[in-house]
Amino acid sequence: MNTQGDNCEPHRPAHPGIFTMREAGKSDHHSAERCVDFPVSVVLPAGGTGERTGLQTPKQFCTFLGRPLISYTIQAFESVPWIQSIVVAVAKENMDLMMDVIQRFKHRKVRVVPGGSTRHRSICNGVLALGEEERPAVGRPKVVIIHDAVRPFVEEDFLCKIAMAAKEQGAAGAIRPLVSTVIATTSEGYLDHSLERAKYRASEMPQGFTYDVISQAYQRCSESDFEFGTECLHLALQYCGTNAKLIEGPPTLWKVTYKRDLAAAESIIKETLSRSACVITGGLAEAMNLADALRKGVSALDMELDIVPDLMGDNARCLLKEWNFIQVSVSDSCLSEVEAILVALEAENRALLHPVVVIWVHFSRTDELPVSERTPTAIMELASTAKHRNILIYGIQLKQSKHWERSVSRVAEIASALIRERSPALVGQLLQA
Amino acid sequence: MNTQGDNCEPHRPAHPGIFTMREAGKSDHHSAERCVDFPVSVVLPAGGTGERTGLQTPKQFCTFLGRPLISYTIQAFESVPWIQSIVVAVAKENMDLMMDVIQRFKHRKVRVVPGGSTRHRSICNGVLALGEEERPAVGRPKVVIIHDAVRPFVEEDFLCKIAMAAKEQGAAGAIRPLVSTVIATTSEGYLDHSLERAKYRASEMPQGFTYDVISQAYQRCSESDFEFGTECLHLALQYCGTNAKLIEGPPTLWKVTYKRDLAAAESIIKETLSRSACVITGGLAEAMNLADALRKGVSALDMELDIVPDLMGDNARCLLKEWNFIQVSVSDSCLSEVEAILVALEAENRALLHPVVVIWVHFSRTDELPVSERTPTAIMELASTAKHRNILIYGIQLKQSKHWERSVSRVAEIASALIRERSPALVGQLLQA
Repeated sequence: MNTQGDNCEPHRPAHPGIFTMREAGKSDHHSAERCVDFPVSVVLPAGGTGERTGLQTPKQFCTFLGRPLISYTIQAFESVPWIQSIVVAVAKENMDLMMDVIQRFKHRKVRVVPGGSTRHRSICNGVLALGEEERPAVGRPKVVIIHDAVRPFVEEDFLCKIAMAAKEQGAAGAIRPLVSTVIATTSEGYLDHSLERAKYRASEMPQGFTYDVISQAYQRCSESDFEFGTECLHLALQYCGTNAKLIEGPPTLWKVTYKRDLAAAESIIKETLSRSACVITGGLAEAMNLADALRKGVSALDMELDIVPDLMGDNARCLLKEWNFIQVSVSDSCLSEVEAILVALEAENRALLHPVVVIWVHFSRTDELPVSERTPTAIMELASTAKHRNILIYGIQLKQSKHWERSVSRVAEIASALIRERSPALVGQLLQA
Repeated sequence: MNTQGDNCEPHRPAHPGIFTMREAGKSDHHSAERCVDFPVSVVLPAGGTGERTGLQTPKQFCTFLGRPLISYTIQAFESVPWIQSIVVAVAKENMDLMMDVIQRFKHRKVRVVPGGSTRHRSICNGVLALGEEERPAVGRPKVVIIHDAVRPFVEEDFLCKIAMAAKEQGAAGAIRPLVSTVIATTSEGYLDHSLERAKYRASEMPQGFTYDVISQAYQRCSESDFEFGTECLHLALQYCGTNAKLIEGPPTLWKVTYKRDLAAAESIIKETLSRSACVITGGLAEAMNLADALRKGVSALDMELDIVPDLMGDNARCLLKEWNFIQVSVSDSCLSEVEAILVALEAENRALLHPVVVIWVHFSRTDELPVSERTPTAIMELASTAKHRNILIYGIQLKQSKHWERSVSRVAEIASALIRERSPALVGQLLQA
């Protein structure tokens, strides 16, 4: 069982489920683990061509923060301990791309099958593959969850509800209130009538089925269903007589459809990665004062700081918890402390799934030179190397002076902006507070 | 008539309609102006409380790039020459906020009326206000366009279609294909049936009505319609017997509903502002070489450069066309050229609606000091002042060296990132290429 904080798999970050929108303290991980005590597998049809995004790459392979959308979706399922396997159905021309994604981001529970010419054919291929599972540890699932590769923010709580209802009723699906009024049109393009909004819902994903219902539905359905149908719930009703249980899902179930949605997804992930940072002070009084002042400064910018003297012993928890590190250096302009953070991050393989930000804050006394002449070049070189490993290094320097308070609030503002924007183009810069 | 390039109103930027997604060369401004030869006014109901965004501020007043959403929507209508006036219906508690927005961004065609307790009451107040127009130059409109304050990307071409169809048919409305399957649910929460997607459409905004149809519909409709109705097209059908003409709209008609949609809107606007920049070389050979090399570098990053020696004479067109300026300085580390750009931008009031980026690229010979000791402080001070006027100044320095090509591609990468991100926190920094 892969619970939070468990680090038994050294090549996986400890918190792959960081993007669940659940607030801290409200998690019911444990109840979910208790309730789903039967095998569940997932089918992700990902054969789409992405016409609606206005992009050349199919949208499930569009990349943000260095990783394709489909990897975020896979990660959401992999982080759920009671999901045993994920079958992704991919168009033949994207097979290599998909295998590369799995390898690069070390996805473990995934199998890839060829997609079909329509959505239903792709899903059907995925369901068939689940029936032919060869790995002895992975049996035929009791429940199959079908989801879209382009809905990356699905949460464990809701998956649990779908899985439980599917097991009990044979089929279950997510619904959402209608966003727009739905109208019927005449053949000449005029308003015929509008539907009463309260009686209808939008059918969304995920949907769940017992293996028996979904495999029977696909065995019995017609060519026309395969060609023109879109709704699995409809097949379950028509061919197995199973009325799906409908469950209202959270707004986070939304689907990346247009190019603008990619920007929205990126901004959600950036925000989630930017809620807090770890400040390392070396235990020096001046650095600790600066860290305390910084904490006040960034809290006004909705960021929390975890202040530690180093990353040893218990403090190593920060390595597994935080996506952002601020190393405060007093007087010494040597970058060895930053190098030590890099080594620790690499040992944990921490930057595998998301870019990690490391900010070196150099705090000099008024009577000293701000930094040695070599420092700007040294930090640029260090940052260039680290960037290839998905770690973004920036520098900020400030002087002890009568404008101390103003400088600290500038450090807070700059650090917060660097963390939120995660700009690869600006790594290695030494900024002035 | 306010056409592009016309600068007869000194306090307005020349291109308020920058955000129409229309590609250059495809504009049919002139045909639109010819076709709509009758008075058209707009009603924007903006009384919502923004519960669904998850934000405290009502979503129409949420700000990005320093300006509230509703101002972008107003701007979209103000830039259409044949729209004579815009009535915004605002909840009493937001009246002052709205007046402040109008004043700050110098909106001219707008009147504010109190919103009602429901959407229909707010629209009705707006329509009544159009009937009581007191300004002699603004007569009662032939056609009233109703739109949402939270759909900022509406385009003139489509407004023209709606206005024309409304004049001919009495009523017209935008439709879009359904994104999800619509299903009917049983009272116990099970699937009853799914609707055949091809027969239905989502009803969107804008909608248009002749003044007579919409005012009659509101005179005749019931309290229950005012309280629970949402669809103006339905009122026109029920109370005036007018079957609305339905017109398929572009995806840009989408509605800002959730917090993530604000990020999407911001990213669309940032992208639109970042397509090109103007490089000012001073006419010096070294600067012109650098500019040419930069042009190649940023074209790989999907940005175009307009290279000019200065902003005098014909080149002043760049001030009205571009949102980004790159001043190349050779050897001289004085910032007077940047100051001159600021003066020119202010004279045009160019940064009223969008932040303008000015990047000072300092290009020194190898035998010179990179910049004088005073320069970092000078650029920081200049940038702090300019920031209050919505102009974002950054500096980049590079040396002539054997690594010239690598340095130029770094300048391109950094300049492109600064332009795309428009980060207020990083203004005044002198970055190293």
